[in-house]
Amino acid sequence: MLIQIKVAMQYRFMQPNTVLLALEAAHYDGQQIVNAHININDTEVSRFAGDADVGQRIIARARSHDMNLTYSAQVDVTRSSRPLHLLQAAPLHLVPGAVIPYLRASRYCQSDKFTHFVDSRFGDLAGGQKIAAIRDWIEGELTYVPGSSDADTSVLETFAGRVGVCRDYAHLMCTMARAAQIPARMVAAYSPDITPPDFHALAEVWLEGAWHLVDATGMCSPESTAVIAVGRDAYDIAFMESQVPAEMLYQSVSVVRG
Amino acid sequence: MLIQIKVAMQYRFMQPNTVLLALEAAHYDGQQIVNAHININDTEVSRFAGDADVGQRIIARARSHDMNLTYSAQVDVTRSSRPLHLLQAAPLHLVPGAVIPYLRASRYCQSDKFTHFVDSRFGDLAGGQKIAAIRDWIEGELTYVPGSSDADTSVLETFAGRVGVCRDYAHLMCTMARAAQIPARMVAAYSPDITPPDFHALAEVWLEGAWHLVDATGMCSPESTAVIAVGRDAYDIAFMESQVPAEMLYQSVSVVRG
Amino acid sequence: MLIQIKVAMQYRFMQPNTVLLALEAAHYDGQQIVNAHININDTEVSRFAGDADVGQRIIARARSHDMNLTYSAQVDVTRSSRPLHLLQAAPLHLVPGAVIPYLRASRYCQSDKFTHFVDSRFGDLAGGQKIAAIRDWIEGELTYVPGSSDADTSVLETFAGRVGVCRDYAHLMCTMARAAQIPARMVAAYSPDITPPDFHALAEVWLEGAWHLVDATGMCSPESTAVIAVGRDAYDIAFMESQVPAEMLYQSVSVVRG
Amino acid sequence: MLIQIKVAMQYRFMQPNTVLLALEAAHYDGQQIVNAHININDTEVSRFAGDADVGQRIIARARSHDMNLTYSAQVDVTRSSRPLHLLQAAPLHLVPGAVIPYLRASRYCQSDKFTHFVDSRFGDLAGGQKIAAIRDWIEGELTYVPGSSDADTSVLETFAGRVGVCRDYAHLMCTMARAAQIPARMVAAYSPDITPPDFHALAEVWLEGAWHLVDATGMCSPESTAVIAVGRDAYDIAFMESQVPAEMLYQSVSVVRG
Repeated sequence: MLIQIKVAMQYRFMQPNTVLLALEAAHYDGQQIVNAHININDTEVSRFAGDADVGQRIIARARSHDMNLTYSAQVDVTRSSRPLHLLQAAPLHLVPGAVIPYLRASRYCQSDKFTHFVDSRFGDLAGGQKIAAIRDWIEGELTYVPGSSDADTSVLETFAGRVGVCRDYAHLMCTMARAAQIPARMVAAYSPDITPPDFHALAEVWLEGAWHLVDATGMCSPESTAVIAVGRDAYDIAFMESQVPAEMLYQSVSVVRG
Repeated sequence: MLIQIKVAMQYRFMQPNTVLLALEAAHYDGQQIVNAHININDTEVSRFAGDADVGQRIIARARSHDMNLTYSAQVDVTRSSRPLHLLQAAPLHLVPGAVIPYLRASRYCQSDKFTHFVDSRFGDLAGGQKIAAIRDWIEGELTYVPGSSDADTSVLETFAGRVGVCRDYAHLMCTMARAAQIPARMVAAYSPDITPPDFHALAEVWLEGAWHLVDATGMCSPESTAVIAVGRDAYDIAFMESQVPAEMLYQSVSVVRG
Repeated sequence: MLIQIKVAMQYRFMQPNTVLLALEAAHYDGQQIVNAHININDTEVSRFAGDADVGQRIIARARSHDMNLTYSAQVDVTRSSRPLHLLQAAPLHLVPGAVIPYLRASRYCQSDKFTHFVDSRFGDLAGGQKIAAIRDWIEGELTYVPGSSDADTSVLETFAGRVGVCRDYAHLMCTMARAAQIPARMVAAYSPDITPPDFHALAEVWLEGAWHLVDATGMCSPESTAVIAVGRDAYDIAFMESQVPAEMLYQSVSVVRG
Repeated sequence: MLIQIKVAMQYRFMQPNTVLLALEAAHYDGQQIVNAHININDTEVSRFAGDADVGQRIIARARSHDMNLTYSAQVDVTRSSRPLHLLQAAPLHLVPGAVIPYLRASRYCQSDKFTHFVDSRFGDLAGGQKIAAIRDWIEGELTYVPGSSDADTSVLETFAGRVGVCRDYAHLMCTMARAAQIPARMVAAYSPDITPPDFHALAEVWLEGAWHLVDATGMCSPESTAVIAVGRDAYDIAFMESQVPAEMLYQSVSVVRG
């Protein structure tokens, strides 16, 4: 499936600034970059490999107080997702070392607190069936309320409050998967199925020796998701990390099929 | 129902110390103190009214490093509890001013975080029926695990972890009641139905113009509960508050019928 | 000193609603209400005594979705504050029972975490000298940044972040005083010395048998502060507690001398 | 400097179990493994590279309920540490991609909360001078109190409480370094200078293109520290991660020069 992405943003910084950006669709399994153009005014740009070697992050050194950025890309998403419930979990001793950190708690995902709940609620299931049940439970229990969380919101609050946006759904998905001893990580992505169009966040779980996208909001399918970056939680996949306060002057994201 | 209480405790302090104690059964609706004896060695004792004028707290000024305390009492519990589901909630404008603070969040009970969950799960019920449903939900969802919580554990962790001891059950009961706009407070009590015998904690909710005991652990009934003290949460009903670190040398609690 | 207060607010509720209001200057030691007028459209109003019997809270039952409120008052503040450093702390056994709860931790003030810091930093001082040193420390360490905190911010974050608004200064003042075993509570007030004019929050500490206002922001003096309400922390002194989401359409506060 | 390490531990699991172990001294810059022997009874052992490719983690599949483990090694620590205050910070655009994640907040290190404090306290310093000042500040402010923290303690509590053990000192070191935009990570290590002997935790900061050990407890020097593993915080460097509850029957650690 072809996806057309257009991003425009304009930020003002209190002083000339170096920012980290994660907003280019990644060269990643199941998706090809047909074409991509990025333009950042008056900055010196370098790149480095993203977390877990997924995608690239940009380091932009702005020479002025203003950063104007446009990014457009066409991505061909060719992945076909196997039904979750058919996938087996890997026994722990067969999980690659590079995947092990995604079993652990992180800034926003205190998975260590959820072991008992996940065991008692989903303990009779395993592997992809357990993941599917957790995903369905989250989708059923949470209500999507724009503005209901902020950069401080952790899964303890999301689990109690039962409201959130995509980052909170994905955090809870990662948290419960990890509490079930299934590696899970946070994914930043573009999808044409988000309304209104915006950066999207979902989860990826490790089953049968590969990562599989799981969206607990129920909004996107792996077949129409263009991955940008991965990490332990929202902290690792922010589209912009700035050293100084940044004022948003303008931002638009458009993602359409075709 | 007659209840016989015996408490013995021996504490060592790092230095001569003033402690606050909440361990005498209260003169309270539905219970009469038949007899009571308290003995604290080598201390100067004074008393003041407890929170919300329930019971008395003791201020004990220990002249030495060791406090030996014995307390025995016979309490006649005469309260009969009306079935919760028959009780109506009071509209907010009829809640007395002194009861209003028990609608609010406290140190361990972040009730402000639970509004959405309580609304979506119990929103079709009201008053005592809602309280009964919450109590049943807590009893069904939580597992009683001695040692599973400590003095730092808040309801956010209890709700995620689904394990706890009596204080955690009572905290969650208070939290969800407050999130449902029903005043609720924490109660320290003695009951012959706790195994092994120990200080007990449960909740009290405000319905139809009176406080009603609710024990989400399912262990005790109001008919066999001797109330000691009330407060917003565990912080307010500790059996001992000490200004300096206290080492427990010995402690025993016995509560039997008769 | 005469203070003239004018408040106007307009709120829209999702449905007819009962709200609790704390915005009338209190009949309180050291201040007399010369005149006061409050007008709330289309509501049924009742009153009850505020926390610790300070001031009155209003219960307003709005018959429509909109609440328009105006309040004006002239208050004569006659209190003269004694220098903090001359005031002695009361020994614990002489603290009245009704004051004891203000020694304890609360929703936003985890004073139990600060014992060691307060002991090691201020342990050589006592009573009012300790309070004055804590107040000066807070004023020196924190930076007043509008918008730097929200309704979730607790003193743990304020203490780490070293930024805040008046509520955060007052929370930290209460927290450190309690950690030093000196009762402290949160105060809502009007003062002509706040720029831009707004509801103000400060602390009150218990020394020599009376409450004394302490403003760690350094902005207001007790001589020009008109107290509205007191409580354990910000949760207890909110100017409005609403049962349903409230949208602010308009709000202005004006406080001037004369 | 030659270091002799001996570890013995005996754990009982509720059921046959797979555990992850991080307790072998690493092949790492500045230290050579002269000899090493590890013996784990009745388990199937495999290894994978540790976080950031430092050292190896062991996966031990225990066939029974008991794990008996002995580990002994002789390590030649040859690193010589350059004085911190001579080291320059790398500008952000020269920090390798693999190092970037160590700039971010983690489960126990909410570095995002400390930006203002670190700026106002240490903002006039840079690079290694800033790190040295932070290290000295932590050593001066915190008191080492065995048992003062547990697996839940985050830096927000450590910073308020001013007490801790080595993990807490290292967490605060990592947190403040990250808040100062200097990459920092958590290190598990052996040192002969710990009394009583135990696993040790310290920090490592990224300056002038290399990692440098920093021990805010002041107990160990880089010249006598044998690194085991690194990670974002204590969660990543636990000496044992078990899937089921583990009961410690015996554990001893001995580290001596020679």
